[in-house]
Amino acid sequence: MYKVKVFVTLRESVLDPQGTAVKSSLHSLSYNEVEDVRIGKYLELTIAKSERDLDVLVKEMCEKLLANTVIEDYRYEVEEVVPS
Amino acid sequence: MYKVKVFVTLRESVLDPQGTAVKSSLHSLSYNEVEDVRIGKYLELTIAKSERDLDVLVKEMCEKLLANTVIEDYRYEVEEVVPS
Repeated sequence: MYKVKVFVTLRESVLDPQGTAVKSSLHSLSYNEVEDVRIGKYLELTIAKSERDLDVLVKEMCEKLLANTVIEDYRYEVEEVVPS
Repeated sequence: MYKVKVFVTLRESVLDPQGTAVKSSLHSLSYNEVEDVRIGKYLELTIAKSERDLDVLVKEMCEKLLANTVIEDYRYEVEEVVPS
């Protein structure tokens, strides 16, 4: 069994209004040290072992459903879980 | 300057309807290996150096604004950025 952590972030060139709003809120709480905020999605997938290659599987899922690759980038980390 | 990566996830005991919906969609795309999906937020903060302690600062920001600690957990990673 694998635990796959997927990070989906807006591409650098794409404006992030949600991040801008959070930055303003942090400034109004007097956290003026904050220079930039970018907000993305974080997904934890639990995937059973199968005959399909895990990397191929995760990339397909990201490109078909989890990320919009026109405006978003994704990366992922795989962790093998040994059932106790 | 620091780059702080914040991960906000729903607590284990809290239902995640968004994750359940994504899981169903993945199953309907025939990715039946997927056993569970949990969805959270991923934030990248760029924070300037200041006299305030960074850990205290980040924890305060998370508890006051970025996470709802009643239903969400957070963790973060700090990376020091050397301006080039």
